[in-house]
Amino acid sequence: MSTDKERFDGRQPNQLRPISFQRQFTRYAEGSVLVCCGETKVLCNASVEERVPPFMRGEGRGWVTAEYSMLPRSTHTRSMREAAKGKLSGRTQEIQRLIGRSLRAVTDLKAMGELTVQIDCDVLQADGGTRTASITGAYVALYDAFAGLVEKGVLKEIPFKDSVAAISVGIVDGQPLLDLNYEEDSKAEVDMNFVITGSGKFVEVQGTAEEEPFSVEELDALRDLGLQGCAQLAEMQQEALELK
Amino acid sequence: MSTDKERFDGRQPNQLRPISFQRQFTRYAEGSVLVCCGETKVLCNASVEERVPPFMRGEGRGWVTAEYSMLPRSTHTRSMREAAKGKLSGRTQEIQRLIGRSLRAVTDLKAMGELTVQIDCDVLQADGGTRTASITGAYVALYDAFAGLVEKGVLKEIPFKDSVAAISVGIVDGQPLLDLNYEEDSKAEVDMNFVITGSGKFVEVQGTAEEEPFSVEELDALRDLGLQGCAQLAEMQQEALELK
Amino acid sequence: MSTDKERFDGRQPNQLRPISFQRQFTRYAEGSVLVCCGETKVLCNASVEERVPPFMRGEGRGWVTAEYSMLPRSTHTRSMREAAKGKLSGRTQEIQRLIGRSLRAVTDLKAMGELTVQIDCDVLQADGGTRTASITGAYVALYDAFAGLVEKGVLKEIPFKDSVAAISVGIVDGQPLLDLNYEEDSKAEVDMNFVITGSGKFVEVQGTAEEEPFSVEELDALRDLGLQGCAQLAEMQQEALELK
Amino acid sequence: MSTDKERFDGRQPNQLRPISFQRQFTRYAEGSVLVCCGETKVLCNASVEERVPPFMRGEGRGWVTAEYSMLPRSTHTRSMREAAKGKLSGRTQEIQRLIGRSLRAVTDLKAMGELTVQIDCDVLQADGGTRTASITGAYVALYDAFAGLVEKGVLKEIPFKDSVAAISVGIVDGQPLLDLNYEEDSKAEVDMNFVITGSGKFVEVQGTAEEEPFSVEELDALRDLGLQGCAQLAEMQQEALELK
Amino acid sequence: MSTDKERFDGRQPNQLRPISFQRQFTRYAEGSVLVCCGETKVLCNASVEERVPPFMRGEGRGWVTAEYSMLPRSTHTRSMREAAKGKLSGRTQEIQRLIGRSLRAVTDLKAMGELTVQIDCDVLQADGGTRTASITGAYVALYDAFAGLVEKGVLKEIPFKDSVAAISVGIVDGQPLLDLNYEEDSKAEVDMNFVITGSGKFVEVQGTAEEEPFSVEELDALRDLGLQGCAQLAEMQQEALELK
Amino acid sequence: MSTDKERFDGRQPNQLRPISFQRQFTRYAEGSVLVCCGETKVLCNASVEERVPPFMRGEGRGWVTAEYSMLPRSTHTRSMREAAKGKLSGRTQEIQRLIGRSLRAVTDLKAMGELTVQIDCDVLQADGGTRTASITGAYVALYDAFAGLVEKGVLKEIPFKDSVAAISVGIVDGQPLLDLNYEEDSKAEVDMNFVITGSGKFVEVQGTAEEEPFSVEELDALRDLGLQGCAQLAEMQQEALELK
Repeated sequence: MSTDKERFDGRQPNQLRPISFQRQFTRYAEGSVLVCCGETKVLCNASVEERVPPFMRGEGRGWVTAEYSMLPRSTHTRSMREAAKGKLSGRTQEIQRLIGRSLRAVTDLKAMGELTVQIDCDVLQADGGTRTASITGAYVALYDAFAGLVEKGVLKEIPFKDSVAAISVGIVDGQPLLDLNYEEDSKAEVDMNFVITGSGKFVEVQGTAEEEPFSVEELDALRDLGLQGCAQLAEMQQEALELK
Repeated sequence: MSTDKERFDGRQPNQLRPISFQRQFTRYAEGSVLVCCGETKVLCNASVEERVPPFMRGEGRGWVTAEYSMLPRSTHTRSMREAAKGKLSGRTQEIQRLIGRSLRAVTDLKAMGELTVQIDCDVLQADGGTRTASITGAYVALYDAFAGLVEKGVLKEIPFKDSVAAISVGIVDGQPLLDLNYEEDSKAEVDMNFVITGSGKFVEVQGTAEEEPFSVEELDALRDLGLQGCAQLAEMQQEALELK
Repeated sequence: MSTDKERFDGRQPNQLRPISFQRQFTRYAEGSVLVCCGETKVLCNASVEERVPPFMRGEGRGWVTAEYSMLPRSTHTRSMREAAKGKLSGRTQEIQRLIGRSLRAVTDLKAMGELTVQIDCDVLQADGGTRTASITGAYVALYDAFAGLVEKGVLKEIPFKDSVAAISVGIVDGQPLLDLNYEEDSKAEVDMNFVITGSGKFVEVQGTAEEEPFSVEELDALRDLGLQGCAQLAEMQQEALELK
Repeated sequence: MSTDKERFDGRQPNQLRPISFQRQFTRYAEGSVLVCCGETKVLCNASVEERVPPFMRGEGRGWVTAEYSMLPRSTHTRSMREAAKGKLSGRTQEIQRLIGRSLRAVTDLKAMGELTVQIDCDVLQADGGTRTASITGAYVALYDAFAGLVEKGVLKEIPFKDSVAAISVGIVDGQPLLDLNYEEDSKAEVDMNFVITGSGKFVEVQGTAEEEPFSVEELDALRDLGLQGCAQLAEMQQEALELK
Repeated sequence: MSTDKERFDGRQPNQLRPISFQRQFTRYAEGSVLVCCGETKVLCNASVEERVPPFMRGEGRGWVTAEYSMLPRSTHTRSMREAAKGKLSGRTQEIQRLIGRSLRAVTDLKAMGELTVQIDCDVLQADGGTRTASITGAYVALYDAFAGLVEKGVLKEIPFKDSVAAISVGIVDGQPLLDLNYEEDSKAEVDMNFVITGSGKFVEVQGTAEEEPFSVEELDALRDLGLQGCAQLAEMQQEALELK
Repeated sequence: MSTDKERFDGRQPNQLRPISFQRQFTRYAEGSVLVCCGETKVLCNASVEERVPPFMRGEGRGWVTAEYSMLPRSTHTRSMREAAKGKLSGRTQEIQRLIGRSLRAVTDLKAMGELTVQIDCDVLQADGGTRTASITGAYVALYDAFAGLVEKGVLKEIPFKDSVAAISVGIVDGQPLLDLNYEEDSKAEVDMNFVITGSGKFVEVQGTAEEEPFSVEELDALRDLGLQGCAQLAEMQQEALELK
C-alpha cells in the first residue's frame, strides 16, 4: 500500500473536498438545501405531508423517505432521463432506499407523530460521491423541515436521536483515499460508502471490490478514513445549522 | 374589459416580471443557462452530440430537440416524479415538442451539419410561465453551445436565422395581462402562449378559453401584448449574450 | 401572398369539403355519429355513465371527456396500434384533451348533474383534419346523448350553452386556405386549428409555423377563414340535428 | 338435450344469422371488407408490405398476421381502450394469434414470396361471434389484397390452398345451437369455435365448458353444427368474391 | 394414417410417459406437488387466502385461480424471464386462464365459502406437455390444500364435484399419438389438448392444425386417445392421494 | 454484548446451517446446482452462450451475469410475481447485480474468450440468506459450466482466479450470529452480508443497522464471523466439486 502519490486535485489522502450548505435554496419546500462537495452539487428538498402511507395509519408513528435523481446533463456526457425510459434503474432505487434508511436511523419516528417527510435529492452537477452528499445534505434539509414544524407548534422538539452524514472512501493505485471525486472513483480498485452518526456509530457500510478483492487490513484502513471523514462532516452540519 | 385593477405583485398589465440569465450555471453542458422570470427558475442545459438521430443520417442536416421536467418540489405542493410513474404526462410531451419546434424554427439546420443539440429544461422553481421561460432560456443556452462549436472550428458561424422568445398572456377578471404568474394563471379566463422571433414573426400561437370563449377583439388585444413582451425579451437575450 | 393557384381538388381557397353527419351509426352508444369531411371519416360515439370521476363526486356537476384513436389502416400506409406499443403518443393525448376541452366549453356542467359523457372519436379513414372533424362530429353525438337523457326524463333540457365546431386552416404556397386535406396539410408552411362556438367566439386557437414564421397579416387572414368555416359548420350541425 | 325451445331472434337451432360482406369499405387498404353477421360488424383491412419480419428474411416465404380490437363502445356498455391501459389483454392476444394462424393455414406462404399481409380486424359493433366473424371477413379481405398483387404482376396467382371460415356453436338450455349471438353466448353452458376450410377440414377446434363439463355425444353434435355452418359461410364468401 | 412407426422413446402410440406426484415438495404452501411426466417437471403450489377478490365479496362463493411460469433454463436453450421483459406473453396468459378454468370446472365454489386458492405452476424442466402436466398436478395440490382446510375445520368436506386431468395428443407423421414429448410436439402436424374430468366429461378441447387441416376421422381418433389418457391420469391422481 | 442465548434452532452463534449442493439438478443447463442452506433452497442454473453482449464485442473478453427470482410461494405467505407486476423490484435488481459482481470478481474474463455465462438463481424455498446461498451455489454451477467447456475443448482450463462464497451475519439480541435464518433475520438489529474469496479476501461488504447504529467493535466481530463462515463454505464447495 503506497502512501505518497499526489491526488488529482492536490488533496491529502485523508482530506475532504470543500463543502458548503446553502439553506432555503428554493422557496416552497419546508427544508431546501443545496449541498456542494467540491464540484458535486445536490439540491435536497424536504416536503412535509401531514399524513403517513396507508400501511402505517393509526400507528402514531411518522415516516421519512427519499427520492434521488440526476439531471440528464449533471454528468460529463448526457444520460437519458429515467422518466423517458419509463422506469427507475436499479442504481436509483438502491440509492433512494439508502438515503431513506440513513435518515430514519437517526429519527425518532414515534416522536414525529403521523407525519411524512419526503426528501428529494436532485443532482445538479456530479463529480463523484452524489449518494453520500445527498445523505449529508438531506440531514440538514430534514432538520430545517423539523424546525419549521416545531415553530408551527406541530412538534414539540426536533425528533432527531443523532445526526447523520456519509462519505465515500476507496483504494486508488493501492492507496486508501477519503472522499473520491469522479476521476478517482473511476480508477478505484475498491469503493466503499460509510453512513455514520454524529456519535460515531455505523448506519451503513457498503464496500465493493471493483478490480481486486481486498484484505482485512485494507478494510480496516478504509473504515478509519470513513469514521474520520464523517466526524468532520458532522461538525460542518452543526455549523451550517448554527447549532454550535 | 376593465383596465384599472391592480396586479397581485403591483405590475402594470403590460409589464414583464424581472428577468435574468445566468450563463455557465453548470460546468459540463456546452450551454448552461439558469433563466429566472420572477420566481420561475429554469435550468436550460444544451448538450452537443456529433451525430443525428438514425432517421436523419446522411442528409447533411442537424437536429435540435428538447426535454422538459419539473423538480417534484418546484411547486407549492410536491408532485410525483414522472420517472416514478413510469411515463411522461401528455402535458410534458406537449411542452417538450413545443420547445423543440420553437428552437428549430429559428435554426438553420442545414448549416449545422450532422450535429444534434439536446436541450434539457429542468424547472427548479415554478411560479407560472415555465414553458415560455424554458424557450426564452433555451435560446440563450443553444446560442452558447453554437458559439462553442464555432470556437472549436466545428461550425463556421452561429447557425441561427433569427432569435426566439416566448411569453404567456391571459385575461384575468376581464383584463388582458402580460406574463402571468401562478396566481394569475390559475384565475385566468383565457390563457395564451406566444412564441415569436426577434423580427416579430409568429412561431406558435396557442390560446385556450378556460372559462368563457373569447371574442375577436380579445384575441387581438392578447396578440398585441404577446408581440410587445417578446420584443422586450429579445432585447434582454441580446444583452445577456453581450451582442449589443 | 398569391391568391390564384388552384387547389388539389378544385376547391376555392375559402371552400369547405363536402360534410355529412350519419346519426345512429352504431346501435349501442347513446349518441353515434359518423362524420365525413371529404374523405376524412370519424366515428363519434357518446357513452353516458350515471356518475362522475372520483375527484368530482358530490359537487353536483357533470363531466364530458374524450378519447381519440386512428384505425391502423385509416391512413395511406399502416401505422402501429398504440395498444400494441403500450402507450398513447403525445399527439393522441394532446388531441384527446383538445376535444374534451372544446365540448366542455359549450356545456353547462352544472345543469348536467352528476353524469359523465365519454366521447370516443375513432378515425376510420384519414385525409387531413381528423381532430377538427372529431370535434365537429362529437358535438352532434353529444347532442343526441343529451336528447336521449331529456327524453328519459333524466335531464330537463339539453345542457348546451352554445354549439361548437372546429376547422383547420393553413398557408400553402403562400396562400391561406380553409379546410386542408392531407396533401395540402403536408405541404403547408403554416398550420392552424380553430375551435369556435356557434356565436362566433374562440374556444381554442392553435397555430404552428411548420416552415417559416408568419406575420401578423397572415395570422389575421387565417383567423378570418377560421371564423367563416366554423360559421358554416355550425349551420350544418343545426341542419343535421333538424334544429332549423 | 331438449330441441324445441325458440331462439331469442326466432332462428332455427342450426340457422346462421344474415351475413354480408362490403368490399372496398375504406379506400387505402389493399383489401377492406366490412363483414356483418347479424348485428356483429367487423372491419377487416388487409395491408400489404413488400418485406417480411426480420426472423424470416431470405427464406423466400411470405407472412400473414393479424391484429384485433374492439371499439370501446362496440358493446352494450363501454369498455376501456387497451391503448389507454397500456397493454393488450390476454383475450386480445389469443384472438389475434387465432386469426393469423387460421389464415396462414390456407395460404401458400412459399408462393407469396417475401411479402407480409397484416390484417386488422376492428369490431365496430359486437353482438357475439366477433372472433369468428373476423376470420370469415379477413379471408375475403386477404383475397382482395392478393388479387391486387396479381393484378399488379407481383404475384402470378392467388396463393390460397383453400378458403377458410369460422363459426361459434354452443349449448344453451341443453340444446346445441349454431352461431350464438351475445344473449345466447352469455347463457351458454358450452361454447365452441370452429375454424374450418372450404373443403371441410379443421384448422382450429376450441371448446370450453362454461358451466358443466360436456359429453362425447354433445361434442359430436357441436362438431356437426360447426361443419354445416362453415360450409354455408364458404359458399357466401365465394359469392361475395364473385367466384361462383 | 400409418400406425407402425416407433416413437422416439419407444412408447406405444397410446402410451403415457411415466408419471409421478411428489406431495409436500416445499414446506410453506398449503398444497405442494412436484408432478413429473417423463422429463417434464412442474412444481404446483396451492396457497390459501381467507378472502376473495373484491368483485366477489359478499357472494358467499370461493375462487380458484392459477399462475404459470417457466424457469428461464427449464428449456433446451435459455429464454428471457417475463419479469425482465416487463409483461406476460399471450401464451402465458392463455395457459394461466386455462388452468384456472379447468380447476373451477370441478370445484363447488359455493361449498368453498369466501376463500381463494391461488395455484402457482412453475416449470422446473420442460419436455412437452407443461400446461397439461400443470393441470394434472394442480388438481392434486388443490386437493391437499382443501384437505388441510377440512382438517382445520374451515371446510366440512373437500369441495370437489369431480377430479380433473389433462393430456396432449397429436398427429405425427400421420399417426395419432398420446402424450407428446418436446421432440414429437415440434414435429406434430396437429396438436390437441384435452381437459377431462374423472367421470369422462370434457372441460376443454383445443386443437390446432400446425401444418395441415385435419379431417373428422382424425379429430375423432384424437378425441378417443384423449379420453383414454385422462382416464389413466385420473387413476394415478387417486393413487397419489391414497384415495384408492 | 451477551453471548449465552440459545439460537432458535439450537446452533452455536458461529455455526453454519447444514449445507448441501445437488449438481446436475436439471438436465438442460450447462451447470445446474440445487443449493440447500438449512431450509433455504435455491436452484442455480448456468447457461453458456457463445457470444457476449453487444457493448463487449471484439474485446476478446467474456461475461458472467446473473438473474434472481423467488417463486411466489417460496415464502411463508405468497408474494406477487414480478412478471405479473410488470417490473423488477429494486431489491431484485440489487441482488442480481451483487451475484454477477461476486462471480466476475473471481473469474478471469480474458481467459474466457467471447463467451457469456448467465446464472439463474431461482429460490424454491426461502428461510433467510437467499442472496448469499445464491452466490455460494452459483459458484459451483459456474464451475460445472466451465468444466463442460474445458471438456468440449472450448476452454483450455477453468478460468477461475479464486473461489467465492457468501454468508449473512447479524446482531440479534445484542449477540453477533453467523448465518441467520428467517426468524433471526427478522429480529436482527444489524444485518451484514459478506462475499469472500477462497483465499480470504473481501469482494463485498454490506452492513445495515436495522434498529440501532452499531459500534466499531460490533463491526469487527461481524467481520470475523463472516471470514470464518466463508472459509467453511469454501471447503464445502471444494468437496462438492470433488476437488479435494
